Amino acid sequence: MLPTILDLTSLRAAYEAGKSPVDVIETVILRRAASEDPAIFITPTPDDTLRAEARSLMERAPEPNSLPLWGIPFAVKDNIDVAGLPTTAACPAFAYNPEKDATVIARLRAAGAIVIGKTNLDQFATGLNGTRSPYGAPRSVFDKNYVSGGSSSGSAVAVASGLASFALGTDTAGSGRVPAAFNNLVGIKPTPGLVPNVGVVPACRSVDVVTVFASTVGDGVAVRKVMEGYDGADPFSRRAAPSSLPASGLRIGVLDEAEREFFGNSHVEALYDAAIKRARALGATIVPFDYAPFRQAAELLYNGPWVAERLAAVKAFLATNNGDFDPTVRTIIEGAKAYDAVDAFEGRYRLEALRQKTKTEWEKVDLLMLPTSPTTYTVEEMKADPIVKNGHFGRYTNFANLLDCAAIAVPAGFDANGHLPAGVTFVGPAFTDDALAPFADAMHRAADTGMGKDRKAALPEASRVAPPSDDFVPIVVVGAHLTDMPLNHELTRPGGYRLRRARTDGSYRLFALHGTIPPKPGLVRDPGFTGYGVEVEVWALPPAAFAGFVQNIPAPLGVGKITLDDGSCVTGFLCEAHAVTGGREITEFGSWRNYVRGTGSA
Amino acid sequence: MLPTILDLTSLRAAYEAGKSPVDVIETVILRRAASEDPAIFITPTPDDTLRAEARSLMERAPEPNSLPLWGIPFAVKDNIDVAGLPTTAACPAFAYNPEKDATVIARLRAAGAIVIGKTNLDQFATGLNGTRSPYGAPRSVFDKNYVSGGSSSGSAVAVASGLASFALGTDTAGSGRVPAAFNNLVGIKPTPGLVPNVGVVPACRSVDVVTVFASTVGDGVAVRKVMEGYDGADPFSRRAAPSSLPASGLRIGVLDEAEREFFGNSHVEALYDAAIKRARALGATIVPFDYAPFRQAAELLYNGPWVAERLAAVKAFLATNNGDFDPTVRTIIEGAKAYDAVDAFEGRYRLEALRQKTKTEWEKVDLLMLPTSPTTYTVEEMKADPIVKNGHFGRYTNFANLLDCAAIAVPAGFDANGHLPAGVTFVGPAFTDDALAPFADAMHRAADTGMGKDRKAALPEASRVAPPSDDFVPIVVVGAHLTDMPLNHELTRPGGYRLRRARTDGSYRLFALHGTIPPKPGLVRDPGFTGYGVEVEVWALPPAAFAGFVQNIPAPLGVGKITLDDGSCVTGFLCEAHAVTGGREITEFGSWRNYVRGTGSA
Repeated sequence: MLPTILDLTSLRAAYEAGKSPVDVIETVILRRAASEDPAIFITPTPDDTLRAEARSLMERAPEPNSLPLWGIPFAVKDNIDVAGLPTTAACPAFAYNPEKDATVIARLRAAGAIVIGKTNLDQFATGLNGTRSPYGAPRSVFDKNYVSGGSSSGSAVAVASGLASFALGTDTAGSGRVPAAFNNLVGIKPTPGLVPNVGVVPACRSVDVVTVFASTVGDGVAVRKVMEGYDGADPFSRRAAPSSLPASGLRIGVLDEAEREFFGNSHVEALYDAAIKRARALGATIVPFDYAPFRQAAELLYNGPWVAERLAAVKAFLATNNGDFDPTVRTIIEGAKAYDAVDAFEGRYRLEALRQKTKTEWEKVDLLMLPTSPTTYTVEEMKADPIVKNGHFGRYTNFANLLDCAAIAVPAGFDANGHLPAGVTFVGPAFTDDALAPFADAMHRAADTGMGKDRKAALPEASRVAPPSDDFVPIVVVGAHLTDMPLNHELTRPGGYRLRRARTDGSYRLFALHGTIPPKPGLVRDPGFTGYGVEVEVWALPPAAFAGFVQNIPAPLGVGKITLDDGSCVTGFLCEAHAVTGGREITEFGSWRNYVRGTGSA
Repeated sequence: MLPTILDLTSLRAAYEAGKSPVDVIETVILRRAASEDPAIFITPTPDDTLRAEARSLMERAPEPNSLPLWGIPFAVKDNIDVAGLPTTAACPAFAYNPEKDATVIARLRAAGAIVIGKTNLDQFATGLNGTRSPYGAPRSVFDKNYVSGGSSSGSAVAVASGLASFALGTDTAGSGRVPAAFNNLVGIKPTPGLVPNVGVVPACRSVDVVTVFASTVGDGVAVRKVMEGYDGADPFSRRAAPSSLPASGLRIGVLDEAEREFFGNSHVEALYDAAIKRARALGATIVPFDYAPFRQAAELLYNGPWVAERLAAVKAFLATNNGDFDPTVRTIIEGAKAYDAVDAFEGRYRLEALRQKTKTEWEKVDLLMLPTSPTTYTVEEMKADPIVKNGHFGRYTNFANLLDCAAIAVPAGFDANGHLPAGVTFVGPAFTDDALAPFADAMHRAADTGMGKDRKAALPEASRVAPPSDDFVPIVVVGAHLTDMPLNHELTRPGGYRLRRARTDGSYRLFALHGTIPPKPGLVRDPGFTGYGVEVEVWALPPAAFAGFVQNIPAPLGVGKITLDDGSCVTGFLCEAHAVTGGREITEFGSWRNYVRGTGSA
């Protein structure tokens, strides 16, 4: 029996326990057939094709879980090309049969994932609500009167209702985040350019981003890592330059009083306040900041020349097929005809000026935590006032791609009636995609909301996101740099974090150095000595901070290789032997901390 | 007596020898009055104002050379605001009296520099030739029939004829480089955003850059460093992230056969070939590359929607003062009316696609070396065909700002008749401004062209540009990392370079370590020992490479602080003392190199 929600951990465990991709695909086929929402898919992958794909995977990679996404079923927003299925962008007359997979699809399939179908969307990804489609309006999995959110409507509902382990969306204004909020999901919105757009129908090419809906932050990040990486065929593709954040004591920017706007939805406001409390409980420093320049940038996306990008994307088709458009979408796109090239450049000037203003706010905070959407509406309410009410959804999302941010939307709980969910989104500067994940994950776990439609589901431990450490430089500290010791800030300030407590092998002696301020020990290897080792901590420093850190180390200390009691050999603090001659040996204390406690010397 | 060319070194020496800023200003006043070219200035600073400024400087900073640009006279292109002088942009009807200095002017004045006047330009900085001005056409200092180059025409001629130590230009298409080539000068074109544009009349705001004309690369870089730095009031201002280049063995990209175009000017072609030879002689590896994607990007600047930026800059004025424009400039600017917002975004897509293609070329080379201008023309020739011939000048310059490059134009010699000069321009990726300067300077010196109109002037040694080392991390190496030793590549490959040879103080002992591959010594401090010190080398490593370098050091070696015989204390290789117990002491050899020579062990 597979669980309701097909998160990666559960599926991998099932495969480990002997289930096969064919078994999983059969379950997906059954669930898809039984789905209560008829508007999720535009083109489901035919049953037989699905079965064939599962068998083919088992032939090319027989070992369970032998590929990063081995046998993982996923859904694809229908503005992303999948060879063998038509791409419609929710406009039947626009449909074409792509010969090639989009770059992201090719990468996901190579990693073992299986496409279960193309999902519904607001036509041409123009909308945040999910009702602008001739294929019907998907609904929130929690109340079929309510919108699913869009434009990646079907993708979110597919994951939240347990039809797929993850789904791809695209996000220009917030399409990869708003539907996550309305369906109790995680939405991973990468920094623009990190994930290539080759084979994606453009909305606003300069700010379009492929996103992931997933049950946990860990799942979403794992999928993003498979998709990301430079592709020169995408004009906006960029080489990633991961940016780090402090590992602890994050400064989280929250809306100040003046910028709080929930359009009367006190439920969402209460959930936002509760999230602030949780963030504080998790050790963050809460910093109200001025959202105004972000909001003003957000307003440019629809009320500025960027709509001309939407027109650029469909210009030829619009000329011949004006009547085939959703009327609201057409109204928006035709609005672009009012803008000339001077307007386009002046819009850019305005955006860059606002970007400079946001820099002042970024100096106060490490991450922003914003309501994903400040409110929600029923399908009827949305259809009655489609442009204004859609605009409400984008109040806290529209700026993110224009201002080159990474974002992760996570569930923040259900309203007081236990009826509808809301979310918060963590937003960081460009290429903090990995760096912001641990806190977003911790906040999701602390919210205790389950996953998708299964409110009781426990988030698997295996998907927990640890701080990023791949490129960080490990360094063994022995004395004044230990946690809570006087120089620990030299590790934490540049974004270092503790990897683990450890112990040297038995050949090291520890000495109290004479006259150092603050007091410091010296660690010296003596291969002929057999002791019990010295307690140390292994920290990880960003490579960029390492040079400055080492340059600041005064004689007689330096860094060399230290052998730990597990046999590993790690760069860390050593002392020139001459400096300990005649000094007090404190090896017997077992650690600098014990010695300091005993003598009160630090 | 001041020399013909007022380079910074000569002026500083004059001040050191007792001349005062008032003396220098009197010379400038005399020279300005005697100038043969009546079209250099639009508004010269009045004589009495100049004298008052010199006296005021002496009051506020009496010590000679006590400010970075103490008493240095400079000229300012008349599209940059100087409080007290009108800004015309070479359009009399457009003139206004700025209340504030442009940010760059305020910074230069605070550093002690003195504005001698506002210089002529192609109207609204639209042109590369210098003839599009109602204030007359400045001429090449080498032949008054020939154009000066533009748009920063008067600025270049002011420096080349010895009226100013340096001058500011602006550069959108090449206006800070082409006039340098035609007047035997250096043109420093910073990375867009490095130097703020607050108080500069825009040409194309998204790609305008303030530049420096100077007699040497060293002078120009010194001025740029005073001007640079973030200013949030400029929407396009950026925080600098200096980017390094390999310190030796640069790969220099040169035009391949297919992209060579000199419009029939065999003189310039021969000078370009001679520059290639010199670059090779200076140790560079010459790599022909495909200029096509750069050229195609260059063509977008005038034959694409970017002209709408020029229209955006003067839209209101054009509406009321159509007849006040230079006809050629008006024709160009009015051409922008044909572009709509869709064109603007499609232009951006095209540019970004070309940027991706140029990345492939950048993988082959570290820097580009291009002809600054492929040819030159007389004023008459230019006026007869003003758009096409102007376009020739920009063939190798127009791309640089669109593609976010840093560039330095340097003189490359005179034609076979000794008549007219030509130049080459070194182009590097964003923020290689400092990194590309040493090679550009070396090439200028090797060309032996003098400075400005003084072809015999010797380039002062004091302005020589050393490789950038400010942020590089010094490290003392003792053994296998020394020059020509087996691990030296671990320093050179990531772009490290040798700062100097040095010697430790007398307290260090050197040992030959047992069984290391390649053979390595161990340096150990013994405070009780009085020897003669050990020969070492101090190298500089890019900070980003330092962490990896240290992580690769095996026990028993590490890095700590080493005291040199000049008393300085530098991070460098030390050895754990236990490892040398019983090893062979080789201190008496004085250096690892001597020991190796004696024993043939490396």
